[in-house]
Amino acid sequence: MTSLRGATAIVGIGQTEFSKSSGRSELQLTAEATLAALDDAGLTTDDVDGMVTFTIDPTEDNDLMRTLGVSALGYSGRVPHGGGAAAGTILHAASAIAAGAADVVVCYRALNARSGRRFGRARATTEEPVRGTGWGHTNWMLPFGVMSPMATLSLNLLPYMEANGLTNRDFGEYSVVIRDYASRNPNAWFYEKPITIEDHQNSRWIVEPVLRLLDCCQESDGGVAVVVTSAERARDCKHGGAVVLGAAQAIGDRNMADSLYVAAGVGPDDIDAAMIYDAMSPQVFMALERQGFVKPGEAKDFIASGEIRIDGRLPVNTNGGLMGEAYIHGMNLITEAVRQLRGTAVNQVARVETVMVSSGICGHVLQKS
Amino acid sequence: MTSLRGATAIVGIGQTEFSKSSGRSELQLTAEATLAALDDAGLTTDDVDGMVTFTIDPTEDNDLMRTLGVSALGYSGRVPHGGGAAAGTILHAASAIAAGAADVVVCYRALNARSGRRFGRARATTEEPVRGTGWGHTNWMLPFGVMSPMATLSLNLLPYMEANGLTNRDFGEYSVVIRDYASRNPNAWFYEKPITIEDHQNSRWIVEPVLRLLDCCQESDGGVAVVVTSAERARDCKHGGAVVLGAAQAIGDRNMADSLYVAAGVGPDDIDAAMIYDAMSPQVFMALERQGFVKPGEAKDFIASGEIRIDGRLPVNTNGGLMGEAYIHGMNLITEAVRQLRGTAVNQVARVETVMVSSGICGHVLQKS
Repeated sequence: MTSLRGATAIVGIGQTEFSKSSGRSELQLTAEATLAALDDAGLTTDDVDGMVTFTIDPTEDNDLMRTLGVSALGYSGRVPHGGGAAAGTILHAASAIAAGAADVVVCYRALNARSGRRFGRARATTEEPVRGTGWGHTNWMLPFGVMSPMATLSLNLLPYMEANGLTNRDFGEYSVVIRDYASRNPNAWFYEKPITIEDHQNSRWIVEPVLRLLDCCQESDGGVAVVVTSAERARDCKHGGAVVLGAAQAIGDRNMADSLYVAAGVGPDDIDAAMIYDAMSPQVFMALERQGFVKPGEAKDFIASGEIRIDGRLPVNTNGGLMGEAYIHGMNLITEAVRQLRGTAVNQVARVETVMVSSGICGHVLQKS
Repeated sequence: MTSLRGATAIVGIGQTEFSKSSGRSELQLTAEATLAALDDAGLTTDDVDGMVTFTIDPTEDNDLMRTLGVSALGYSGRVPHGGGAAAGTILHAASAIAAGAADVVVCYRALNARSGRRFGRARATTEEPVRGTGWGHTNWMLPFGVMSPMATLSLNLLPYMEANGLTNRDFGEYSVVIRDYASRNPNAWFYEKPITIEDHQNSRWIVEPVLRLLDCCQESDGGVAVVVTSAERARDCKHGGAVVLGAAQAIGDRNMADSLYVAAGVGPDDIDAAMIYDAMSPQVFMALERQGFVKPGEAKDFIASGEIRIDGRLPVNTNGGLMGEAYIHGMNLITEAVRQLRGTAVNQVARVETVMVSSGICGHVLQKS
């Protein structure tokens, strides 16, 4: 069957300000981000004929269409598994375009996750998990006191720490790097607010001995949209396009990165920078290993020795990530990848041709056109 | 970009019994229907690597995976707009396969719409519309007493009736045909229960003067699954495959059928039978016209003169449709289309090479392989 390799490109990126209280609806945030992304691409609402978002996003396609004046869609779909959907929106958009169902697809996500529903809090035993997150099984954990995302993920993180000799202080090395990136990024909530490893170690425990406060992402309000079209059409867009070399989704017993490298025709050595979903700092350690950038157990030294910094082997989350910039459920990692390829990032990597974006179960590889 | 034309096929169909009280969860119904569909295709759970369902379906992909023992997926997605998603599951599955993200995709939907949540009832003004239905705008109608799907749709149906000189009795002609089909179908809830036009006219008003009870679909419990794979792989399946000649989705100001005919490379004259989403009888009248089978205003005579019966120009909903067989949200129209192409329908059309399936905003054309 047809490969998606190089067939599509991200041509527009848009975002609202990132805050703790947006003062407006998710629909409004989405509309603003979408218009910004279209303008960035040199396209208009008349060009849009596809939409993709998360299953858990509150904005319906037809409400967004009415708000923006988009007349018709040939494709609309949603990607499951909470924030894991982020990088996957590109797979679904690219599939729709390659299938001929749409030409210009807007991938969007907005949330008021601080002023509205706060994902990070403990869930009451009487409360069902949000449909579309794939977290139904967590009902079995609730009676044992595993009530928050941090507690749930720690069930995996603690064995990882023990197997590889990590302590919470090791995770702090990531937090320091990410806050350094964020401190130079005016769009980041933690702009001009770097931290030291002592700050990290003095922050309160969230799940002892795994996660402290400064290992956890923010609760943010904001919206992000990206525009995907064919590689051919991308050549006529204002900034050209970040070519989608490959995209993959992997649910269950499969390594997403393995699928992604096959799809994209590259390996970890070909990747110049990585944007990795960091709802919690340890996720980056595990991703670096699962994605083949280092061998199992080596992420600790890789990060501590500065290899994810701007001049390291693999700069990671150069916008400050979800912990430093904002938690727009992974979508602001895609915009940062595109900025890196355009050469317009505030923390610009010197030589960058190929960037990988991942959100756990989903990923894609973008390449300078 | 690549066309989907003929690239994929439906190779397996499965369903539970259709009832008013299934006595089990939607997850269980989905699992049963999926196993039946895989067995029908000569495939196993080991072959499955993709899943597609409705945004509003309650069964999460990973819960179904655990239940069935499916180890990994390379694609999972959801189609919005309530029952409109039905025919669209095939577009999304075919796109995923053509993109190389999955090889064998299960499209599923189960609901306990009689014993559980009843869609047809009036919605309280304090109740939000179900997320994923795209019915947020109906909040504006509630204060004016437009509280049920039947009332909402009637806002479109009444002008159609007035413009074309139809009365409710005309709609009854469809109900009689569909109940005739159902009366011969042992899987139909209304098996051996045909009606006359007098029965129709004696049934109570639901929305006067548009809809009577016998113009409305059933409330049903049940599950349906279909398996989609590449046309190449279909040749090795137990019953071969019903080739997906084209598939389309159209939200907003676009005629889905126009897109579908372009995608499939056929026109209405090439279609031998049609499966049309009949939540309410008038929808079939409007669909026949919008899909180009008859000119605007001519559906009334087309149906009254028997052209949608088994020996007519275009047999429609030969299983009894959603009104006569069961309301499995449109998915049981896909299974009937496949049976027609295999020659195994209880109401078998004599010469049938090409069948169109539609659920309002989504459609696809299937062809005998």
